Amino acid sequence: MISFADFLEETAQSTEEALRKFLPSVDGNEVRLTDAMAYSALSGGKRFRPFLVIASAELFEVEREHALRVAVAVELIHTYSLIHDDLPSMDNDDFRRGKPSLHVAFDEATAILAGDALQVKAFEILSNIATHSDPEVRCELIASLSLACGYQGMVGGQMLDLESEHENLCEKEITRLQHLKTCSLISFSCEAGAILGRAEKPFRDALKSFAYDLGLAFQIIDDLLDVEGSQDALGKPIHKDIKRGKATLVSILGPDQARAKAQKLVRRATTHLDPFDKKADIMRAAAEFVISRDR
Amino acid sequence: MISFADFLEETAQSTEEALRKFLPSVDGNEVRLTDAMAYSALSGGKRFRPFLVIASAELFEVEREHALRVAVAVELIHTYSLIHDDLPSMDNDDFRRGKPSLHVAFDEATAILAGDALQVKAFEILSNIATHSDPEVRCELIASLSLACGYQGMVGGQMLDLESEHENLCEKEITRLQHLKTCSLISFSCEAGAILGRAEKPFRDALKSFAYDLGLAFQIIDDLLDVEGSQDALGKPIHKDIKRGKATLVSILGPDQARAKAQKLVRRATTHLDPFDKKADIMRAAAEFVISRDR
Repeated sequence: MISFADFLEETAQSTEEALRKFLPSVDGNEVRLTDAMAYSALSGGKRFRPFLVIASAELFEVEREHALRVAVAVELIHTYSLIHDDLPSMDNDDFRRGKPSLHVAFDEATAILAGDALQVKAFEILSNIATHSDPEVRCELIASLSLACGYQGMVGGQMLDLESEHENLCEKEITRLQHLKTCSLISFSCEAGAILGRAEKPFRDALKSFAYDLGLAFQIIDDLLDVEGSQDALGKPIHKDIKRGKATLVSILGPDQARAKAQKLVRRATTHLDPFDKKADIMRAAAEFVISRDR
Repeated sequence: MISFADFLEETAQSTEEALRKFLPSVDGNEVRLTDAMAYSALSGGKRFRPFLVIASAELFEVEREHALRVAVAVELIHTYSLIHDDLPSMDNDDFRRGKPSLHVAFDEATAILAGDALQVKAFEILSNIATHSDPEVRCELIASLSLACGYQGMVGGQMLDLESEHENLCEKEITRLQHLKTCSLISFSCEAGAILGRAEKPFRDALKSFAYDLGLAFQIIDDLLDVEGSQDALGKPIHKDIKRGKATLVSILGPDQARAKAQKLVRRATTHLDPFDKKADIMRAAAEFVISRDR
């Protein structure tokens, strides 16, 4: 079997190439907008969500070409969310992936518009027949993605996050916040393969359960890296949560217990993959990666 | 035949009711987000784009229930674009539809997120089977709407608009800007009825041509009202373009020639409706309304 690291690198490269192909280049003065879209979307990153789309699609022998289009759509949504989250009126972060955030490199208005345009580009891609020959499947992808990144998901989670600064959230409240903000899109990434493969409901549910446990573990490690990591490795400033007075599972449980919780979540995540047997080994390896990563 | 004024009022009311039904109400702390979405989406307005969706759908005897869902999707997109355009880093407008803009009534971060959530809600609605039983039709609506409001359309136009402040655009450049910024979504609104009714290409093209002429006339009158209208009637400040040094067809051609151009555009717009015969009378009346409106 191909190692997880190689698989992640390979899918990141394919995603990068595909993003380059999908990102527009225009002749008019609105080129500033498309330059801004490319600046953020092509700035590297782990491409973990595209990996999940591609790996879940392989469980159902979906053609790579189809999975890659969905992977790109998810990465565009993720990129747009980072752009808007970094804005001065939100998290006010000047660095992202080792370079100035979009609103610093360009300006605030352009950053808002680039985020808007990246979001809608994702739906343009999914609606196209090249994503899947069956329009029912395309509609299902669109319905599921729109729920994952609307007020019921990612954007709702970001609202909760802003509302929670300087509030003492309990473990349950933080978990709900992260489920909305982070896990929704990770869950769509894992479910996408099942939708493309027209899999039965139990398989979809298994992948969603895997994703929610994995996503929460992913977020705990993110918060741990904010406390214990290095700006060099992460490409963004650290100690942001403490400065902002933001409660996280790490601040509430302490680093050791938080890490133990992440490990427990990852173990539970992998049990959800049992129905897929050996076919899901690469996703099990991804779960191991999530708790061992340093960036 | 029902009068245009009555038809517009009736479709505005149906749209308002439908918006109320579609706009979420949540229990969690993210209620601030859904309150903000409702604040802007339910703040009145002419609902001219929903009218165009419903009127164009009637040309093809599409069920009202289907047309109304698309009308709501279009109005959500229009609302999100107004919210983001009003932001301090964009047009910095504190009033909209006679009350404080969303970022004034709530705050900037909430306004950005509410716009994001409204945009994705539009795609959620279109992807649902209740919009049309044929998923091919739903995908076509989504594809067409995403092109209309992406970098190739509305958002690209807003970028051009920001780039053009204090630049001396010529008539051709302003026309292109308005085609992207305003006409794209108006064009989708008119084409939507044809998509829902699975009309042949010549009918779709006729409606799009109608929309581009109508949209540009609409914008000229908007710019004239900014010069000659009253804040009371418009519900927003006037003389914004001059203050911002923004070139418009009115500032370039002068009010009289600009009005003459709008009248010419409206006459040409109605000739595109010839293939629909008497069935399109309400759309012809809409074109007349566009040049005679005072708000």
